[in-house]
Amino acid sequence: MWVPAPVCGIDTGVVRVYAWIVHKVSIGVLGASGYAGRELCALVARHPRAELAFACANERRGETARIGGREVTFLASDDAPLERATLVFSALPHGASRPWVDAARGAGAKVVDLSADLRPGNGAACQVPYGLTELAREDVRAADVVANPGCYPTAVLLALLPLLTRGLIAGGGCVSIAAASGVTGAGFTPRRDLLFAEVSEDYRPYAVGNVHRHLAEMSAMVRALGSDADLVFTPHLLPVSRGILATITVPLAEPVSDPIGIWRAHYAGEPFIEVTSDVPALRDVVHRNVARITAHVAAGVRGPTLIVIAAIDNLMKGAAGQAMQNGNLLMGLDETMGLPA
Amino acid sequence: MWVPAPVCGIDTGVVRVYAWIVHKVSIGVLGASGYAGRELCALVARHPRAELAFACANERRGETARIGGREVTFLASDDAPLERATLVFSALPHGASRPWVDAARGAGAKVVDLSADLRPGNGAACQVPYGLTELAREDVRAADVVANPGCYPTAVLLALLPLLTRGLIAGGGCVSIAAASGVTGAGFTPRRDLLFAEVSEDYRPYAVGNVHRHLAEMSAMVRALGSDADLVFTPHLLPVSRGILATITVPLAEPVSDPIGIWRAHYAGEPFIEVTSDVPALRDVVHRNVARITAHVAAGVRGPTLIVIAAIDNLMKGAAGQAMQNGNLLMGLDETMGLPA
Amino acid sequence: MWVPAPVCGIDTGVVRVYAWIVHKVSIGVLGASGYAGRELCALVARHPRAELAFACANERRGETARIGGREVTFLASDDAPLERATLVFSALPHGASRPWVDAARGAGAKVVDLSADLRPGNGAACQVPYGLTELAREDVRAADVVANPGCYPTAVLLALLPLLTRGLIAGGGCVSIAAASGVTGAGFTPRRDLLFAEVSEDYRPYAVGNVHRHLAEMSAMVRALGSDADLVFTPHLLPVSRGILATITVPLAEPVSDPIGIWRAHYAGEPFIEVTSDVPALRDVVHRNVARITAHVAAGVRGPTLIVIAAIDNLMKGAAGQAMQNGNLLMGLDETMGLPA
Amino acid sequence: MWVPAPVCGIDTGVVRVYAWIVHKVSIGVLGASGYAGRELCALVARHPRAELAFACANERRGETARIGGREVTFLASDDAPLERATLVFSALPHGASRPWVDAARGAGAKVVDLSADLRPGNGAACQVPYGLTELAREDVRAADVVANPGCYPTAVLLALLPLLTRGLIAGGGCVSIAAASGVTGAGFTPRRDLLFAEVSEDYRPYAVGNVHRHLAEMSAMVRALGSDADLVFTPHLLPVSRGILATITVPLAEPVSDPIGIWRAHYAGEPFIEVTSDVPALRDVVHRNVARITAHVAAGVRGPTLIVIAAIDNLMKGAAGQAMQNGNLLMGLDETMGLPA
Repeated sequence: MWVPAPVCGIDTGVVRVYAWIVHKVSIGVLGASGYAGRELCALVARHPRAELAFACANERRGETARIGGREVTFLASDDAPLERATLVFSALPHGASRPWVDAARGAGAKVVDLSADLRPGNGAACQVPYGLTELAREDVRAADVVANPGCYPTAVLLALLPLLTRGLIAGGGCVSIAAASGVTGAGFTPRRDLLFAEVSEDYRPYAVGNVHRHLAEMSAMVRALGSDADLVFTPHLLPVSRGILATITVPLAEPVSDPIGIWRAHYAGEPFIEVTSDVPALRDVVHRNVARITAHVAAGVRGPTLIVIAAIDNLMKGAAGQAMQNGNLLMGLDETMGLPA
Repeated sequence: MWVPAPVCGIDTGVVRVYAWIVHKVSIGVLGASGYAGRELCALVARHPRAELAFACANERRGETARIGGREVTFLASDDAPLERATLVFSALPHGASRPWVDAARGAGAKVVDLSADLRPGNGAACQVPYGLTELAREDVRAADVVANPGCYPTAVLLALLPLLTRGLIAGGGCVSIAAASGVTGAGFTPRRDLLFAEVSEDYRPYAVGNVHRHLAEMSAMVRALGSDADLVFTPHLLPVSRGILATITVPLAEPVSDPIGIWRAHYAGEPFIEVTSDVPALRDVVHRNVARITAHVAAGVRGPTLIVIAAIDNLMKGAAGQAMQNGNLLMGLDETMGLPA
Repeated sequence: MWVPAPVCGIDTGVVRVYAWIVHKVSIGVLGASGYAGRELCALVARHPRAELAFACANERRGETARIGGREVTFLASDDAPLERATLVFSALPHGASRPWVDAARGAGAKVVDLSADLRPGNGAACQVPYGLTELAREDVRAADVVANPGCYPTAVLLALLPLLTRGLIAGGGCVSIAAASGVTGAGFTPRRDLLFAEVSEDYRPYAVGNVHRHLAEMSAMVRALGSDADLVFTPHLLPVSRGILATITVPLAEPVSDPIGIWRAHYAGEPFIEVTSDVPALRDVVHRNVARITAHVAAGVRGPTLIVIAAIDNLMKGAAGQAMQNGNLLMGLDETMGLPA
Repeated sequence: MWVPAPVCGIDTGVVRVYAWIVHKVSIGVLGASGYAGRELCALVARHPRAELAFACANERRGETARIGGREVTFLASDDAPLERATLVFSALPHGASRPWVDAARGAGAKVVDLSADLRPGNGAACQVPYGLTELAREDVRAADVVANPGCYPTAVLLALLPLLTRGLIAGGGCVSIAAASGVTGAGFTPRRDLLFAEVSEDYRPYAVGNVHRHLAEMSAMVRALGSDADLVFTPHLLPVSRGILATITVPLAEPVSDPIGIWRAHYAGEPFIEVTSDVPALRDVVHRNVARITAHVAAGVRGPTLIVIAAIDNLMKGAAGQAMQNGNLLMGLDETMGLPA
């Protein structure tokens, strides 16, 4: 039983009386049958101030699925009643999303685009805010369209933001990122290499050689935040369903004595960032819209060096959760509404 | 049906006639009930020229287990008939192994010590060969006692040897190592954090901050091979039973155009090293005494940088398999005998 | 943000005004550090009308854990301030629970006992209701102490209730039950055979030969409900963390044409029973306090025979969830309060 | 290093001299890229007296895979040089296999058909031996074509053979079979429901209601062996890669005091049957061509009833391994040759 945040109330300790304005935001989801799309539908279903206007999934049009406790019937994208939505999430594939962003905008909806089409580093002159919410909250609030970050960039940039904004990464340094993702990061398309019998008891890197698409997105943001550091990024496939964990070695411009203190200061008050002296683990973040981060000095290394770890749920903070966080801001709602922290 | 390598033979294409000298090496195993110890017993059981003299496991003394298709009854270490063994493997815990190495030597046996007690970087003045076989084959052949490398150092050093012996790592550079291990690496002791329900669907780093015991072992060998590079080493726990995969970012002294070619040249003829242009994966190495390695230039990075990946089975090439490889050399046998490649 | 069910309210469609009586039930948990105990603490933490009075865990006394988003410090059982609790859940081991049930009663608390000590079939003359809520709701409501059913019996009896109460099981028939449980069913005690590396990729029966403790509990209830059928019960250990699925072959007294219709009729209005024509699966029930059940005629069998399948989360509907369901009734609260359906 | 079984030899205890006739059987594999097909290719690769003549896989024709340590290039079935094979394994899909069996026969090869096309219970007038080797060894030896049993029927029939041949199953009784299989049993075709993220942490029955294809095969054999018992068969999908475990409740015609003794007597001398008083588990049988079986009296049941458990590797004894066992017999070779027991 979810109840929206009240607009006013009294609480005597014995009796509580609250009142709400009950207005629901109509939300449409494009690309609704993939892992991120289904997670979006589930978030809408449990959101106190949102309702699902439509869910489109071309390949499965006409089919019905139970998502977030409700029956959802998928439409073809061409049949999307865009004009009925106040907010549209596009979880369409990269390359296919942009025209639908334009169409939704044309129909008057605000849009959160989960594809890479509008993100920095993808060749497009980027004219919409990059929705790493903790970095761009005010820009998102004022926007009509937001480019939702990729899953790996979300983990990596949230890990590095305190260093980037303080200019603490060594000039010309090389930041080494080893990240590992659960298989939902590879999508819901049937592929032999993602069958259970192929993934169980395995672990392997992919896109070795600094060639993963997300690298350009991360690098563009690192540049935009004033650092000329190089990134070396090696992603890995984990035999788990959900979650991303990034392990980052960072050369510093100067020694840092209390790294966790820097992160705590930077993220003070952030509802979805957990800075911890413990080791982040996938278990602690799955099904939650949080990033869990720690930072430690690399002992015994001559140049000052940090090891920074960030863990997120690739489908929540790394996709649908952050998209809803941005959508809340676009709608003028509380940023945390309907999101599991 | 395993048959030993013949001492002589003829093969006409239609008829083969071979002859063997049938002499078996008596092997004792200390610490036989752990994962590495059981793997050692299984390797002895299938070895064409070895037989198990005894298997000790203090905690389980008197118990019988079926290992490698044979019944093995565990003795207390104090009851080990050391004088009956030509070769002793010690898989005892770190700290507890050294006195038994001395005792076995005193009884006339050669010894492969799988503990850290005699390895470089562990405080002891190291007077026995470090049994990274592909590096120290001739020293091992001439030795009475060998310190078998740790699992992580085996993967990391085999990955780096071609660079180290060629002086190709940047002077004063920082080598970043993210490695992940299956849970057998944590041993067979019952621990809550290793229960299935705690490990499944999880992934996490540990010993964050460059503080893992194996770091000293790796660093000592890097120094011994003439490099002053710093190592940053972050291990992770994988939800798999077996296997280690190390992902290493290496700054180079000079650009390299064909990295895989360097590894292929370095390891030409090695029976247990597979240099591959594909991506190594745990699936390809488990239950095999091999290291599978690739190396790629990190695209788009200003300083010449390689990404090197190595995968091994932590219980085979990372423990029992390499121990048997060394044991074969100690006994004057073919290095590959009884080992699954 | 959990808000309790209001005691009164108005909803104009545009404005909602609700009011609550804010009185919280004090709940103590004995045996709080095991899987069921932690689940109980987490349920209390999110319960709108409950608060945790204490959590006892002898082995971990003095330690603090984060459960359900709150810090919980474990006390020794001897230090339990029983008098501060209105309701006590005992998740103590079988045999150790009964004295604490008496002590909690003596201190004035109502008690839900999750151990087997007070259940039917365990030798004790059973004088407290057997809290299979869907069977004994009114008895539970009137009770001071409830014996919470075992996990397997919950799944099996909920599957069979519609047949038992209708006298549809063949007289003298033999009901064959193959059930499989996730590893949390074996508890949080560190055991070698429950280590990840031992359980992953395995599956095996246990207590083969009709000798599992839960059989007596199930049989006693089958007898109490008027059937003289024999039960053959074979449990299995699954490589999953949570969940029980029971597959039951039942000889019928007479043919049944619409089995699912019988279950739907029997469980109409039940908030935590899902009768489905689909196949129940663990995925559909984990982390939820539900039983998902289907029933199909066994085609081609001469005697009328049903195959009945029931799936539950062993820690929710099979333990802590059902305990809270019973606790709600003991406290005069809505049965569904604080429970994820 | 595999060496074929010698045709003659002497062994003095100190010196062994053996001689072999080195003649290899040419084997073709149709449907070579699926799980069973690849296992067949791997078995041929390690077989001391066999060599791979060709491997066909229509969908992947032209591709090369590394199987059993060797490079295999897949041909289209139409390009299969059937005349070069002495023995052909067909692992083609059900319905597609029969014409290729005829073609291979026409080209002079003997054939083991792993599809259901020629098995009993599939509508065809069955004129070839049903290759449950332990039942039909002599018929197989004399045959040109063998119908290799399905994976579930192999486990179930091997479990029941000692009862069936002794007439010990109660006349008109109902045998209840709950069996669970790893996902390779569902084949290598990419399917969404077999993706890692869908299977991990799940467990579910399928074909509920006695409607699985293998039921007819099992029932036909039960009838052929003189029993009129009904079978109720419910298969389940396990989150493991390999293995089948069947749990069978059997009403007996008369009480049995030493069930394991019956199985031991029946299977005395069988190289691939392990009768055990322990509980069979998937771990004990994967990657081995064995069935591991136990039988226990169901305690407390009025009618005499046994619980029989059988575990096999679905790809070995349940498919490729048994096929090679039959192939060895067809070729006049030792039945165990090249098979891991």
